[in-house]
Amino acid sequence: MLHKNMFGGIEAGGTKFICALTSEPPRLEHQVTFSTTDPSSTLEQVRLFFEPFIQQGMVASIGLAAFGPVEVNPFSPTYGYITATPKPGWRDTNILGELQRHLGVPFVFHLDVSGSAIGEHTWGASRGIDPSLYLTVGTGIGGAYLLNGAPLSGLAAVEMGHIRIPHDRLKDPFEGSCPYHQDCFEGLAAGPAITARFGKRGEDLTDEDPFWLLEVEYIASALTNLILTLSPRIIVLGGGIMQRSFLYPLIRSRVTELLNGYVREDAILSGMDDYIIPPALGRYSGVLGAIAMAMGLGNPQPALGYS
Amino acid sequence: MLHKNMFGGIEAGGTKFICALTSEPPRLEHQVTFSTTDPSSTLEQVRLFFEPFIQQGMVASIGLAAFGPVEVNPFSPTYGYITATPKPGWRDTNILGELQRHLGVPFVFHLDVSGSAIGEHTWGASRGIDPSLYLTVGTGIGGAYLLNGAPLSGLAAVEMGHIRIPHDRLKDPFEGSCPYHQDCFEGLAAGPAITARFGKRGEDLTDEDPFWLLEVEYIASALTNLILTLSPRIIVLGGGIMQRSFLYPLIRSRVTELLNGYVREDAILSGMDDYIIPPALGRYSGVLGAIAMAMGLGNPQPALGYS
Repeated sequence: MLHKNMFGGIEAGGTKFICALTSEPPRLEHQVTFSTTDPSSTLEQVRLFFEPFIQQGMVASIGLAAFGPVEVNPFSPTYGYITATPKPGWRDTNILGELQRHLGVPFVFHLDVSGSAIGEHTWGASRGIDPSLYLTVGTGIGGAYLLNGAPLSGLAAVEMGHIRIPHDRLKDPFEGSCPYHQDCFEGLAAGPAITARFGKRGEDLTDEDPFWLLEVEYIASALTNLILTLSPRIIVLGGGIMQRSFLYPLIRSRVTELLNGYVREDAILSGMDDYIIPPALGRYSGVLGAIAMAMGLGNPQPALGYS
Repeated sequence: MLHKNMFGGIEAGGTKFICALTSEPPRLEHQVTFSTTDPSSTLEQVRLFFEPFIQQGMVASIGLAAFGPVEVNPFSPTYGYITATPKPGWRDTNILGELQRHLGVPFVFHLDVSGSAIGEHTWGASRGIDPSLYLTVGTGIGGAYLLNGAPLSGLAAVEMGHIRIPHDRLKDPFEGSCPYHQDCFEGLAAGPAITARFGKRGEDLTDEDPFWLLEVEYIASALTNLILTLSPRIIVLGGGIMQRSFLYPLIRSRVTELLNGYVREDAILSGMDDYIIPPALGRYSGVLGAIAMAMGLGNPQPALGYS
């Protein structure tokens, strides 16, 4: 009889899923990555990864960090659902319920970006710093604010990507690509906005493309608002677009300009090199955060209907 | 010998100060209101109000809720200061230290808008609802988010008034009046922005003035961002400009339009009548909150150097 000594993690992203298992985090013992297609085939792949380990009695619990918007209130009839997503086929998907029903182990559930924030706070760049903010800018834009290591929760799970920011149509006549809000932050600055603007993907723009100055402006405006609203002690800024590391110093100086001395904290006045930083766990922030959630860290509530 | 059974409150606002004392809140037993002039004469008036009661041994503690930005970190050398304010004469004023030194009773210190939020949460419109947001739109703009009844604190005391929001210069060519950020929320929508735009005060515009639709747009944009970032369970919207009660339904419907079904919570989908509401304590939210702080409610830390 094997002990249930492994924790599972699922980063259920809008582009790809990463599933992993380990008894010694942050080292991953087993992992798989696959593209996000339709819900039934994607969740089937999740089951195929975990089932052999579960059947051998090796899995204590699984953390599920899913792309949003999601319902995180355990008392809601749609708890565990991906709700108003524009992603085709995924609207109103009971992702937690489906996986719990098939796998029969305890789950802990929250947003994908909460997973990344918890991963970085547990083993990565924001370790031990509180409160912290994680913002990802990639295919989508999402933020998670951790207070005492746990994601802020109120009426709904917030993800900050759809806030409204200044949009100077003289500099950027693009109308915005968000199906809900047109030129919100995500509608101006996420991957699909770049593709809609230029007919090619962000990956295919050169570092010299003048668009990046607009991207800096949008990210810096959003971070300024988040600093003035949440006042985190550290900001981990990740996501596909932030692979362009030349963006970090440009964003830091633009945030400093936009705040313009109004927030007089040393971390901000001294240039922000240690305030707005890249993730330390690379592509594994999210799945490691999901594993931390499975271990009872980061404090999202265990899913009801616990096995 | 009289017992120290009274709690004091000071709402130290940028326009007026309210000082009050009571042993039976929310009823106020003694109170005074005066205009905010220069620091030394204004703080002298505060002392004159409290001193007779303190000399008779009647005052247990005083809550001080001051206009910002303020330093609320007790470990900072400028703890208790009003810092980077544009208000003439008040920059870098050690308001807490001055009052503590002269009055010699224990103080509790936080932002004026935290006081209003705590007042409404203790005895007013948001009583018992958590998390809650209080936003005031008047001479200045400030917000306070209470989680478990206490103001969120991180790197700095946040007040949300200076967030960046969309500004359509075709509809509103005004450049903005914030000395730090020009056309931030406060620079577009607070009282001084109205005066700078029209050469007369907001009080002197009629209800029919088309400007109010711009004001609705700015307040609704800011609330949308705060909902997407903080997800409060209730929003108390106060301040001088909100004396125009016809603004409430316009703001509620514009927030609903801007969110556009993305946040699918009943409170928001059902039209927001019970979600974005006026204060219940009128002009006394702030001073009653300061009294609640003095009583140990709302949890700002007691000031060091406690008598």
